[in-house]
Amino acid sequence: MHSVQITQNDLTRMLGYNLKRAYMALHTDFRATVEQFGLTQRTFSLLSIVCENPDASQSDVSRSLGIERSGAVVIVDELERRGLIRRAPVPGDRRAHALRATQDGQDIYDRALGAVIQHEASMLGDFSETEIDKLRGLLARIHNV
Amino acid sequence: MHSVQITQNDLTRMLGYNLKRAYMALHTDFRATVEQFGLTQRTFSLLSIVCENPDASQSDVSRSLGIERSGAVVIVDELERRGLIRRAPVPGDRRAHALRATQDGQDIYDRALGAVIQHEASMLGDFSETEIDKLRGLLARIHNV
Repeated sequence: MHSVQITQNDLTRMLGYNLKRAYMALHTDFRATVEQFGLTQRTFSLLSIVCENPDASQSDVSRSLGIERSGAVVIVDELERRGLIRRAPVPGDRRAHALRATQDGQDIYDRALGAVIQHEASMLGDFSETEIDKLRGLLARIHNV
Repeated sequence: MHSVQITQNDLTRMLGYNLKRAYMALHTDFRATVEQFGLTQRTFSLLSIVCENPDASQSDVSRSLGIERSGAVVIVDELERRGLIRRAPVPGDRRAHALRATQDGQDIYDRALGAVIQHEASMLGDFSETEIDKLRGLLARIHNV
């Protein structure tokens, strides 16, 4: 069968390509992990912010996730429909909503978070704690620019 | 206006989330860079492999990029339609194609590659060469697992 030994020198040199491949490698497994709890990457992330920050507004949450406000509203709708978060009125601001996880939402989030932490630990089994910290720090410097 | 100070302790601890945010931060600008040459991330990556590996088959290329063979065929179709690569027959294997960049394809690739290298250098202006090497090495260990 016709086949040649492939080299990828140019792509491998690019940080963006390595980021994409590493992200894809983790993501497939991550997605399967949160799916067990009926969550997606988007609903998991938003639920995480709401659990950690009771009474955050939809604007706060979208800014924090780096997504459009309209996108956040769609995710909030889905989580509210499933009874995992609720929109409470804000005294003195009739247009804003304060987001809160319900008890169900907090329970599902806690279990999903535990599973995701386990998933990452198993994917990164040959990394030392120092290497993971280093990698996380370098990545944070890129996305906090 | 109703607003709370957001913390992201759980998400920030996750490597996957940091990978995604760093990837998104670089990607928007990367996409705009290759778009100037009429390329997307997918066509750029495939063209890169073909330029570096004359006569690679579609199976070689898809394996190397970590994508489905059917996905690679769609990208090859697009690049061939635009006259940037061509499928040559393989002597002794009537079902296989050897992929080659045309002169136009090689020229566009060289220019796009130069622009992408510049784009990354400007995005990573405050990283030392050592830090970039370290980051690339750690990422490669994840996606080569």
